[in-house]
Amino acid sequence: MKAAVLHQIGQPLVLETSHESEIPHGEVQIRLKAAALNRRDFWITQGLYPKIKLPAILGSDGAGVVTALGAGVDPSWLNQEVMLYPGLHWGDDPRVQSPNFQVLGMPRPGTLATHTCVPVSCLYPKPKAWTFQEAAALPLAGVTAWRGLFTQGHLIPGQTLWITGIGGGVALLAMQWALAAGARVWVTSGSHSKLQQAISMGAQGGVIYGQEAWACDLSDQSGPPDLILDGSGGKDHDPMLEALKPGGRLVQYGATTGSPRSLNLFKLFWKQITLQGSTMGSREEFESMMQFACLHQIRPVIDSTWSLEDCQAAINHLANGHQFGKVMVQCA
Amino acid sequence: MKAAVLHQIGQPLVLETSHESEIPHGEVQIRLKAAALNRRDFWITQGLYPKIKLPAILGSDGAGVVTALGAGVDPSWLNQEVMLYPGLHWGDDPRVQSPNFQVLGMPRPGTLATHTCVPVSCLYPKPKAWTFQEAAALPLAGVTAWRGLFTQGHLIPGQTLWITGIGGGVALLAMQWALAAGARVWVTSGSHSKLQQAISMGAQGGVIYGQEAWACDLSDQSGPPDLILDGSGGKDHDPMLEALKPGGRLVQYGATTGSPRSLNLFKLFWKQITLQGSTMGSREEFESMMQFACLHQIRPVIDSTWSLEDCQAAINHLANGHQFGKVMVQCA
Repeated sequence: MKAAVLHQIGQPLVLETSHESEIPHGEVQIRLKAAALNRRDFWITQGLYPKIKLPAILGSDGAGVVTALGAGVDPSWLNQEVMLYPGLHWGDDPRVQSPNFQVLGMPRPGTLATHTCVPVSCLYPKPKAWTFQEAAALPLAGVTAWRGLFTQGHLIPGQTLWITGIGGGVALLAMQWALAAGARVWVTSGSHSKLQQAISMGAQGGVIYGQEAWACDLSDQSGPPDLILDGSGGKDHDPMLEALKPGGRLVQYGATTGSPRSLNLFKLFWKQITLQGSTMGSREEFESMMQFACLHQIRPVIDSTWSLEDCQAAINHLANGHQFGKVMVQCA
Repeated sequence: MKAAVLHQIGQPLVLETSHESEIPHGEVQIRLKAAALNRRDFWITQGLYPKIKLPAILGSDGAGVVTALGAGVDPSWLNQEVMLYPGLHWGDDPRVQSPNFQVLGMPRPGTLATHTCVPVSCLYPKPKAWTFQEAAALPLAGVTAWRGLFTQGHLIPGQTLWITGIGGGVALLAMQWALAAGARVWVTSGSHSKLQQAISMGAQGGVIYGQEAWACDLSDQSGPPDLILDGSGGKDHDPMLEALKPGGRLVQYGATTGSPRSLNLFKLFWKQITLQGSTMGSREEFESMMQFACLHQIRPVIDSTWSLEDCQAAINHLANGHQFGKVMVQCA
């Protein structure tokens, strides 16, 4: 097998060939066809992720064909086309992952490879109508968006939703889920062309987030939002609390611009606001999402596709933030 | 009628006599027997409350006898012993009060008086077994605690709960509700004697909150809490987020020590924490609380009772923070 290996923080991934190891009990080997990058992969290459263990094969999203079975696996999985639920050991509590929870790709070997081994609990049959690329593009970003909007955000039809940073994988899939669910969606971006692309996909409107009064400008367009889905944080956090409808929710699934320097508790309690942290999603949420995606014929947007050899360039492209949709890696 | 009137921010209340005015349509006149103070009253005397209108008769909590009826009021209310739901115009949304919402006592004349007029929607029959003092002590603090714990905090039996600043009205009633609901309660206070009083009422334990590592010390006692009910905020906010069980909730019903200078979003999203603002409660919540209080025979704790003439001294006593339970005013 070949895999893109991270040996050292700050160093580029190295494509290496190694022997395939024995398949553990309850796991299967997959010949990967496509993988997708996530911001998590970039954070790990920068050393900005908890409990990094090196060397590591990154990549949480993948789709391919089951080529070999470990002991104890139902033989009907052999030769199946599958996509991966990218979590392990979520645990019994739907509110939160267990302390043993892992995301595929560090410490377990991930999908930036020609082959990988995963437990059967990660397998999900690839919908026939989907390409391997589409199946690999969806899982981590899709389930993060799904949990953020519905489980944690309580989004219902007709509500007004803001999604910040449109173009990112989670943000774009959240927009697609929300539009199909009957919400009215407004977006923010650093780029006019991304705003236009979002509007062409069904968003009602949007603003450039760098500007001072962006939240006021967006409120003028949309009215106060019931829900804001944000993966950015930083100095835009307070204007979002200010803009939120009384009784509204701000779901935070990331903090790419860091933590805010204040939190106005008076606003929080008087407006009865919910500030909700959200990460990833459970296997059950993944299955609900897949059913919804198939029912509404939603496919993820692909930004660009890179070869395994060019994994590092693909990560750099992701880090630059110019993408609109998922950054993909062709594994075979 | 006599009433304690606030004419100017920072000036003491003045006891004044005035003629009783005509009773508006749909309202009743009450001969007040007892009133209770809340921190809100103190904030208003300091000018630290939104939209203050002067002169004002403060006081949100009261109990007494209906002595006269305005037009359109069911005559069976006459001579009834009543306590007051202290909110007006909550509106239709259980998640949040409407923009027209008011709390009794500024801008409407409040209960620091011998008589007051309120709409029928504020009336609730005083339970026969309760004194007027007990009935006046409960409403605002009780419903704030009720909403914070159950509606917003999702407290269920067996959960671990922290209540900060035990001794305050909301905190103490929250402890009583939570214990009766089968939660395990730990508390914080600035005073050892308050901790001991709370433990004698059923709290499992507690710590002094001024100490550097109070949240670690309390975690050592209780394990990580499912829910924290806090009316303080400030620099203790981050240690509470840190202590909270993954998937846990921090309900904020006030911010007596101000807003925190940071908010760690990484902690928030990775632990899937809910940070929930909460204010007061609806008439429906008030009724649920009263049924619960009667069922479990819970009575509010009275700290001290003052005369109408001594209202200002009573407010100063409240502001000093030495009370354990409600600070009461005898109206008749």
